[in-house]
Amino acid sequence: MFHRRASAARPMLAAYGRGYTSDSSRTVAYTKDKYPGIERSTALNQLSSEDITFFKSILPPTSVITDEDDLSSYNVDWMRKYRGQSSVVLLPKTTEQVAKALAYCNERRLGVVPQGGNTGLVGGGVPVFDEVVISTQHMNGIRSFDAASGTITCDAGCILEVLDNYLAERGYMMPLDLGAKGSCHIGGNVATNAGGLRLLRYGSLHGTVLGLETVLPDGTVLDNMSTLRKDNTGYDLKQLFIGSEGTLGIITGVSMLTPKRAKSTNVALVGLESFEKVQETFHMAKDMLSEILSAFEFWDHKAAGLVRAHHGVGHKDPLTSQYPFYVLVETQGSDSEHDMAKLNGFLEKLLESSIVDDGVVAQDDTQIKSLWSLRELIPEACSKAGAVYKYDVSIPVPKLYTLVEDMRERLAAVGLLGQQVEEVIGYGHVGDGNLHLNITATSYDSKVTQAIEPYVYEWTAKHAGSISAEHGLGLMKAEKIGYSKSPSMIHLMRQIKQLIDPHGIMNPYKYFPSTHQHQHQ
Amino acid sequence: MFHRRASAARPMLAAYGRGYTSDSSRTVAYTKDKYPGIERSTALNQLSSEDITFFKSILPPTSVITDEDDLSSYNVDWMRKYRGQSSVVLLPKTTEQVAKALAYCNERRLGVVPQGGNTGLVGGGVPVFDEVVISTQHMNGIRSFDAASGTITCDAGCILEVLDNYLAERGYMMPLDLGAKGSCHIGGNVATNAGGLRLLRYGSLHGTVLGLETVLPDGTVLDNMSTLRKDNTGYDLKQLFIGSEGTLGIITGVSMLTPKRAKSTNVALVGLESFEKVQETFHMAKDMLSEILSAFEFWDHKAAGLVRAHHGVGHKDPLTSQYPFYVLVETQGSDSEHDMAKLNGFLEKLLESSIVDDGVVAQDDTQIKSLWSLRELIPEACSKAGAVYKYDVSIPVPKLYTLVEDMRERLAAVGLLGQQVEEVIGYGHVGDGNLHLNITATSYDSKVTQAIEPYVYEWTAKHAGSISAEHGLGLMKAEKIGYSKSPSMIHLMRQIKQLIDPHGIMNPYKYFPSTHQHQHQ
Repeated sequence: MFHRRASAARPMLAAYGRGYTSDSSRTVAYTKDKYPGIERSTALNQLSSEDITFFKSILPPTSVITDEDDLSSYNVDWMRKYRGQSSVVLLPKTTEQVAKALAYCNERRLGVVPQGGNTGLVGGGVPVFDEVVISTQHMNGIRSFDAASGTITCDAGCILEVLDNYLAERGYMMPLDLGAKGSCHIGGNVATNAGGLRLLRYGSLHGTVLGLETVLPDGTVLDNMSTLRKDNTGYDLKQLFIGSEGTLGIITGVSMLTPKRAKSTNVALVGLESFEKVQETFHMAKDMLSEILSAFEFWDHKAAGLVRAHHGVGHKDPLTSQYPFYVLVETQGSDSEHDMAKLNGFLEKLLESSIVDDGVVAQDDTQIKSLWSLRELIPEACSKAGAVYKYDVSIPVPKLYTLVEDMRERLAAVGLLGQQVEEVIGYGHVGDGNLHLNITATSYDSKVTQAIEPYVYEWTAKHAGSISAEHGLGLMKAEKIGYSKSPSMIHLMRQIKQLIDPHGIMNPYKYFPSTHQHQHQ
Repeated sequence: MFHRRASAARPMLAAYGRGYTSDSSRTVAYTKDKYPGIERSTALNQLSSEDITFFKSILPPTSVITDEDDLSSYNVDWMRKYRGQSSVVLLPKTTEQVAKALAYCNERRLGVVPQGGNTGLVGGGVPVFDEVVISTQHMNGIRSFDAASGTITCDAGCILEVLDNYLAERGYMMPLDLGAKGSCHIGGNVATNAGGLRLLRYGSLHGTVLGLETVLPDGTVLDNMSTLRKDNTGYDLKQLFIGSEGTLGIITGVSMLTPKRAKSTNVALVGLESFEKVQETFHMAKDMLSEILSAFEFWDHKAAGLVRAHHGVGHKDPLTSQYPFYVLVETQGSDSEHDMAKLNGFLEKLLESSIVDDGVVAQDDTQIKSLWSLRELIPEACSKAGAVYKYDVSIPVPKLYTLVEDMRERLAAVGLLGQQVEEVIGYGHVGDGNLHLNITATSYDSKVTQAIEPYVYEWTAKHAGSISAEHGLGLMKAEKIGYSKSPSMIHLMRQIKQLIDPHGIMNPYKYFPSTHQHQHQ
């Protein structure tokens, strides 16, 4: 039966990103040691003291970081999986400063890593060797907001949640939302084509980004900060930068279309016996909630168990018993009475059709946040194990959960599950066909990696999926693109990279397979 | 007051596109004579009889058109404004045939014009000189439809309306709709990044196209027919082809995300005293109709007058009197009771706030079509005058109609309005900031053109608009891109064109400014 949520208080999602001490970061092994196959590019020069002198001449003193302790949080990713050796981080404040710094690095053949909030999951935002880090941290101004059309323009370093709060005061919202919202930068979101929790409703960044300001490696500023919804004058160049992960230039400004903020938000949580029932629930949600459906998230009992353990003893389960699968359904609409009527009709139909046995509807904002936290705390709860192998794939929905089951069987068969490997967890965005497969382990170990890879990629390719739904390629999947793209596609991508970044200074070692390794093409 | 629509029958939108006799097409002047500034490229070879022999060797006999009478409808655009001199049209049936034909043309340096339904408005789809026309007319198979995810994959030559009817039977709909739907091909829609009537609700093709199959000039088939909503593996190359107007290759297959077909559609028509009130109505629609608002179209009394005249004597006006402006509001939702309640609430508020004085709500599908025809018949009604100068601009909404007023004043001041120029008409998609400015005249005349251009482009650039919101550049605006894009943007576009089409065979003379003319950059 459906019941009203009684209890209220729940711990909120802890912030992602920076915040470790420099000491703890030293315990992370260097990427170059963990990935001995990656060699430093001989085409790139070493940083010299003259370079630092130049950077200090074009930037304020506080914008050139060279102190080792201060460098660590830029060298290590938030998952503590990758560690670079950069000896300089630049924090430009203006597009002009970015252009000067980049043109210099290009001339001097210095590798460059653009960095936003450092919340990436594939090692794309931290250096591998001694690349110059250019962070958008100090570029955080909102440039304009037009309430008539709902368009916002801002610097690339604006934090997603800050933008959303700004828009909330004006009756609008950001069209994307993700767990790292409190730390991630909008420029990083665009550079990695972030998907997140509400893509189902508000669409991808390829549709919602109206304009970009980008600095090319040679210092050219591509000013395409349009706020127009329609503009068919030439190739839509900004699209190339959406999802290019810093390999073509640095995004310095973003212009976005923002939807009206919903007047009414409702959230329901249901427990289900099988993934088939998850799919039936999704079809019914599309049919009955239709235009107000804003999120449809699922997770399995392993994920729920980790979150329960992470919450601690004080935690009370919102449902009366435990289920193999959980689904969170969110609606956003303009009329709370209509929305609630649609949601109730949907939930009643689910009960009548025996698709679900138990569910709960949030009664206020606190309960909405509390139900959401059950989903949003999963990544953090997974990280507590010591190490977590994160895979992010798109698979046609009917096969979405089969990968989790197959992986569990495989790791059990080789004797790793229950030993080094603790749990195999599945959760994600059913509406987008996007599965997050997390494998928690006591530590990062090549034996575990070899049991998972390339199996996970081969499985995904076999089922016509994408080996990176939303996290991107970064360093982790630089060699894996061949599983999802054809040789002729990769060839044209390389040609475009060569055209825009002929000296290969932008985010080296990432995104593209190294030229001497073409195993999966 | 609001009243129910009494009368029902209305003439439906006549089909665009092909259908003139070859005789009448001969009366259209050759483009090369009307635009003497355009010179045939010396880098491109003349077609030989050996070429025809080759084409006949790779295509069925009915797929190689060389008969002069049969060629005319491919050489002349539907507006009868542009006329090329192609002596061969190819109608391939498969992607492989397109690849063979294109590779041959590339090798032989023969210019190629890809053509879909020939419904373009800027002369982009017809040849200028003797280019080989490759039409997608015979590539019209639906490849697959996945009801679980709502994704359709099809050949590029499928007619938009055919696809929409196919989806209607399955509870889905195409996310785009436009007047030419009965003739235009989905490949052409994608190649020109068509916007249309419901972009406001369902977003642009950059968001809804999931995959493309494209043949590059050298015959390489770029297979990117993904049906995944999320795929972050490499640059999103398909985006380059969306809006490239046949200058980079030929789109042969399209994969799209299709929304659930609305269970309830409502349409209201209101009359308004000023464009300020049109804007107020739009803000209220966004606020009160929000997630069910699917179209917001406006037109002025000049447009209404032409449609009335075009309709003939039997026509009865749906509103009790005439107004300076008309707005058509459409809602699409999943619950007719909720939708009607929202629409009625909105209309009551409009009346209470004295924003509108009169309006009508369609009571059934026939009336919905009838109200829509008042908007959809405008382009056709404009064409009756003899000649129509069509401009399609994006402008920030508050200034949208000022261009029409300023143009009217300007043409009156130079003594053309009421003489060669009959009317200056404004209509379009308020929600997208998209104005269609149509200037009807007795004939196409350079004196009229010079009174309009470059004024219209300068005016648009001055107001931070786009000189092509949705129609594209084609031949008409090939020299004008500099009004909307910076030199560095155009430079990078040229580099990409050079990379993918090094011999310049794809849709020559279009899209890019000719290299010897850079006046607006």
